[in-house]
Amino acid sequence: MAKIAVVKEILNANDQVAAENRAAFAGAGVFVLNLMASPGAGKTSVILATAARLPQGVRPAVIEGDLASSIDADTVAARGIPVVQINTGGSCHLDAPMVRAALPHLRLDEIDLLLIENVGNLVCTADFALGADVAVVVASVPEGHDKPYKYPGMFAAADVVLLNKVDLLEVFEFDVAYFRRGLAMVNPDVPLFLVSCRTGDGLDAWVEWLLDKSRVVK
Amino acid sequence: MAKIAVVKEILNANDQVAAENRAAFAGAGVFVLNLMASPGAGKTSVILATAARLPQGVRPAVIEGDLASSIDADTVAARGIPVVQINTGGSCHLDAPMVRAALPHLRLDEIDLLLIENVGNLVCTADFALGADVAVVVASVPEGHDKPYKYPGMFAAADVVLLNKVDLLEVFEFDVAYFRRGLAMVNPDVPLFLVSCRTGDGLDAWVEWLLDKSRVVK
Repeated sequence: MAKIAVVKEILNANDQVAAENRAAFAGAGVFVLNLMASPGAGKTSVILATAARLPQGVRPAVIEGDLASSIDADTVAARGIPVVQINTGGSCHLDAPMVRAALPHLRLDEIDLLLIENVGNLVCTADFALGADVAVVVASVPEGHDKPYKYPGMFAAADVVLLNKVDLLEVFEFDVAYFRRGLAMVNPDVPLFLVSCRTGDGLDAWVEWLLDKSRVVK
Repeated sequence: MAKIAVVKEILNANDQVAAENRAAFAGAGVFVLNLMASPGAGKTSVILATAARLPQGVRPAVIEGDLASSIDADTVAARGIPVVQINTGGSCHLDAPMVRAALPHLRLDEIDLLLIENVGNLVCTADFALGADVAVVVASVPEGHDKPYKYPGMFAAADVVLLNKVDLLEVFEFDVAYFRRGLAMVNPDVPLFLVSCRTGDGLDAWVEWLLDKSRVVK
């Protein structure tokens, strides 16, 4: 009788580790965001604004990914939020092994929501799974309304998009409808939240969506 | 008598093509800029503002590098400037072979200044020589004053830095001294120009520096 070889899909090394991270997070009941954006779009501000709006009992932690420096990690730590700094040493993105290396520095059993801030890069970060539940792309008004057209891969990879700095829509003559059309071309059903971390605009709606998605509220 | 092998430094493939590009540009008397920045920092605006300030007889041309779309190339072409679009098809940076492939579409003997707009990426673009004479890094105020600390590789690779959107320094509480200190840490003597493509501020000084550097004025 002929034997039939069962061909198993071989995950690449990063995806394999990402799957292990995902299992570790799920096992500990931690919901995980991978925040990606251009440099200076406001990832750290979104993290702080999100953490500040979590209901009592939902415990956040942060992994900060940067080429160099601990500027953002220091900012997060100053708010009393557990944070681990990953310096990529030149690499343009976080990868799953880097996140795995950070895990021993976190008490997963004391965390409900883990916010991973990726390196500021609107291209490369989209290609490396970390094991997160939700890919959050933070765009910002000063970058211009054409970004979904120019960086389609990133916006296609998003599970949710935040457009930050909307208090400056008029200053930058930002056409929200044009941005929406570009986004819909590459990712038709992705939720979009218009927010301003400076004024607080739109952040409650974003956090409500996140909590509903994560079901971390106990 | 023993023979001594002369070991020639082997350039990597990209550097080899970059050297060929450089030779082609030099042979045709074309001065070449490689403009690098985060997405939305204002590379295209800097290109248009620079072209508009060139003296009579200095002929510009542009190569536009984008993952996708021809939005910027269309904008440049609408000003009557010769332009070639390179779509990288997902690659996060231009490389020397891409630029070489664009050259047959340009009349180098009818160009004095070639402005190459790289993909919006504050990390990867710094690692790939194109054959340009000057690496121009365009930072922008909305990105924040900490960028030289967080993206040291890019700022270290710059021959000149433009800080764009300086009409919004106060709106973003941007600390120019802090930015300068970070820049000086990674690139002590690099010239820095504070400009606003919206108001025109600082652009004459930048173009004066460029023309002096390039000696393209005939």
